[in-house]
Amino acid sequence: MEALLKELAAVVGTGNVLTGEDVRQRRVDWMSGTNCRAGAIVRPGSTDELAAVMRLCHAAGQPVVTHGGLTGLVHGGEADPDELVVSLERMSAIESIDTVGGTMTVQAGAALQRVQEAAAEHDLVFPLDLGARGSCTIGGNIATNAGGVRVIRYGMMRQQVLGLEAVLADGTVVGSMNRMLKNNAGYDLKQLFIGSEGTLGIVTRAVLRLQPRMASECTALVACPDFDGVTGLLRHMGRELGGSLGTFEVMWRNHYALLTEESGRNTAPLPIRWPYYVIVESLGSDDAANAAQFGAALESALEAGLIEDAVLAQSDTQRQGIWNIREDIEGLIAYLSPLFTFDVSLPIPDMPGYAEKLECAIRERWPDGRIVVFGHLGDGNLHVSVGVGDSGADTRRAVERIVYGPLAELGGSVSAEHGIGLEKRDYLALSRSAEEIALMRTLKRALDPQSLLNRNKILVAEG
Amino acid sequence: MEALLKELAAVVGTGNVLTGEDVRQRRVDWMSGTNCRAGAIVRPGSTDELAAVMRLCHAAGQPVVTHGGLTGLVHGGEADPDELVVSLERMSAIESIDTVGGTMTVQAGAALQRVQEAAAEHDLVFPLDLGARGSCTIGGNIATNAGGVRVIRYGMMRQQVLGLEAVLADGTVVGSMNRMLKNNAGYDLKQLFIGSEGTLGIVTRAVLRLQPRMASECTALVACPDFDGVTGLLRHMGRELGGSLGTFEVMWRNHYALLTEESGRNTAPLPIRWPYYVIVESLGSDDAANAAQFGAALESALEAGLIEDAVLAQSDTQRQGIWNIREDIEGLIAYLSPLFTFDVSLPIPDMPGYAEKLECAIRERWPDGRIVVFGHLGDGNLHVSVGVGDSGADTRRAVERIVYGPLAELGGSVSAEHGIGLEKRDYLALSRSAEEIALMRTLKRALDPQSLLNRNKILVAEG
Repeated sequence: MEALLKELAAVVGTGNVLTGEDVRQRRVDWMSGTNCRAGAIVRPGSTDELAAVMRLCHAAGQPVVTHGGLTGLVHGGEADPDELVVSLERMSAIESIDTVGGTMTVQAGAALQRVQEAAAEHDLVFPLDLGARGSCTIGGNIATNAGGVRVIRYGMMRQQVLGLEAVLADGTVVGSMNRMLKNNAGYDLKQLFIGSEGTLGIVTRAVLRLQPRMASECTALVACPDFDGVTGLLRHMGRELGGSLGTFEVMWRNHYALLTEESGRNTAPLPIRWPYYVIVESLGSDDAANAAQFGAALESALEAGLIEDAVLAQSDTQRQGIWNIREDIEGLIAYLSPLFTFDVSLPIPDMPGYAEKLECAIRERWPDGRIVVFGHLGDGNLHVSVGVGDSGADTRRAVERIVYGPLAELGGSVSAEHGIGLEKRDYLALSRSAEEIALMRTLKRALDPQSLLNRNKILVAEG
Repeated sequence: MEALLKELAAVVGTGNVLTGEDVRQRRVDWMSGTNCRAGAIVRPGSTDELAAVMRLCHAAGQPVVTHGGLTGLVHGGEADPDELVVSLERMSAIESIDTVGGTMTVQAGAALQRVQEAAAEHDLVFPLDLGARGSCTIGGNIATNAGGVRVIRYGMMRQQVLGLEAVLADGTVVGSMNRMLKNNAGYDLKQLFIGSEGTLGIVTRAVLRLQPRMASECTALVACPDFDGVTGLLRHMGRELGGSLGTFEVMWRNHYALLTEESGRNTAPLPIRWPYYVIVESLGSDDAANAAQFGAALESALEAGLIEDAVLAQSDTQRQGIWNIREDIEGLIAYLSPLFTFDVSLPIPDMPGYAEKLECAIRERWPDGRIVVFGHLGDGNLHVSVGVGDSGADTRRAVERIVYGPLAELGGSVSAEHGIGLEKRDYLALSRSAEEIALMRTLKRALDPQSLLNRNKILVAEG
């Protein structure tokens, strides 16, 4: 690797080839705090530099791992000592904003929150939102097809990307910087790079779609008597709120109870009495009209027996209080640790049966085991947290089998929004058929025959 | 082909292998009325039958053209005598509807309108909509990534597809029938088949996303003083209507004038005095609230000088009267014939300059030439119609050069929603770089190395 590093230094500058302690001190996984083990870290300052880097790596057969904000949850940032990390940290510019067309052109290393703020300065919104917003980058959001709490209204990252530029394994720059909502001129190549976790190319720039700013946000926490109430409420709110349903997050009682009264970490706005608690939000342009529509929709849901009780946030503080219960991951960790967390999706009607089955299976094997369920229900996405008092590899495997096992039959997915990376690679076949995996391999071979890009992520490298 | 047809008949039944006059009488292009020239038409009744058909064709090196509803506009349905047509007409079932998850599972041959109606029976909406709804099929909508008049609200066909099943050139069935909004388990393979015009696989089934029904629809025709007014209005309505802006269609004066007073074909709800006329629609759940919000948004637009005049549809008849002006393609044909029609997209701020340039260039060469422009402006999509009194091949080429030429510099697209097919193949390089086209070829080679599927469509077959 030494000779190659010299050539790379000539491209990006000596200061942008990091080795030794500078590599080791980087954490590639925020949950475990694992340090970077790569042979070196290279920091190109432009697409041209990155292309030159990849041409050299391609010629040398040098495998590469791409780093964005390192907030992923499936060990996608891990690199072996014989691998080179390419970090996009110097390519973080917000290049331009078109307020008429509602687009923003950015480099891949731009942090999500900076993009959100830049849009807000022009009275527009970049609607993707998730907890890691301060650190995660647009390139990482694209590579993992990030989800979050606004998917029911605006879709996943895939829907926010109008165009992108990527560097292939051989250094070819594929520029597909489309700025229009409609463009059917040949294959939509950007789709290849969205959600493929950096295994088919390195995303360098993107054209993002912006949305009009919604001035008014109404938030309620409601309790449902049963799962039919939850699904009935989802349909009811979708219909009654028109296009303005912004969030539909469900906490199973085990989540709600643990993070309010049981732990004392948050105030319970509603008593712990019902099986499901839902955070519903409506995004509108006008405060009075939005509040009236939202209130009426909740009232008719109450009359229809879909909900048992409801509390409307009357202030930002109250709104935050409701969200704190849902987002109190630290509380989960504190009370369930050692903790295994999962991110699955499955057809909504199958959810209650699935959750019950999990609980029984966990309790059967670990009588003191705890399971907590919450999720972006409107998206078919559940986050399952399991604590059984042990975090050993064998225990992890056993829990994984219980959580992932039933998904195959239900047509569910072992990864709703986090991706596969290394962590879920062994379970990919539960969610995808042999033909699908073969086709994934066909694509990988076609675009990266030497398996240089994020080797062994999603699929084990061939040969 | 004789021996192969016998084998195919054994798979699909003799009655489902059409030859001779049964082939000739089919029209593959509704605008020109061109008859089918294929060697035969095969009609499989199931995915398994289609897979067997493709296995036989693959073994025989037999090229195949897929037929859906044959409403395409770029000659994608044309077939040479040495080609075999595979028609999906017997695979038109609506298999199931999940009213909770809001999904519908259909076979590819189902007509769009039947899908819309089946959703409506469950108080849900399948939001893709376009003029050919009665004949076009879901498989064709997917293969061409169809657009239409609701893209600004719901996106193109790509966004309506949660899962799909496709048969590859070698007969492999790739089932990716995902039913969840979120699924990041490996590459999103369905994206390969959406918008690739049947060149990478034959779509056989799909899981479609349904939306809540919007009970209230407000429609207005407004006149803008200039293009800044049009773009200002687009932003204004986006912001003021929140999520409920459903349509933003713009007619240049040349379109509006021709199809109202000049031709006498439609009543002009507003005088012919301004350069731009816009159809704006708001989709809401409640009539009174929607109308109030819509009226207030238009009023403030008037006060802000974004619009000069406006008429609100007070009935379905009035609404239809407004849409008739926009959709009077027969009128266009009658008055401009022989007519060349185009479907381009470009960044919205560049539109007025582009349209003016076109008009000058056409008039310079054909002093009596006519050019008419309308489009889904919110989507960056313009439909341009040109009549110069002649429809010869040389004239067509000359007009095409004028219409497509400026797009390269603007980052525009020679096809916003119709696709490339045969018609725009020679112009693909205006909208896509050499690296992009090379990557398209890489994909084609990887999935269909013999170039059996829709040969020569989008790209000229290699070798």
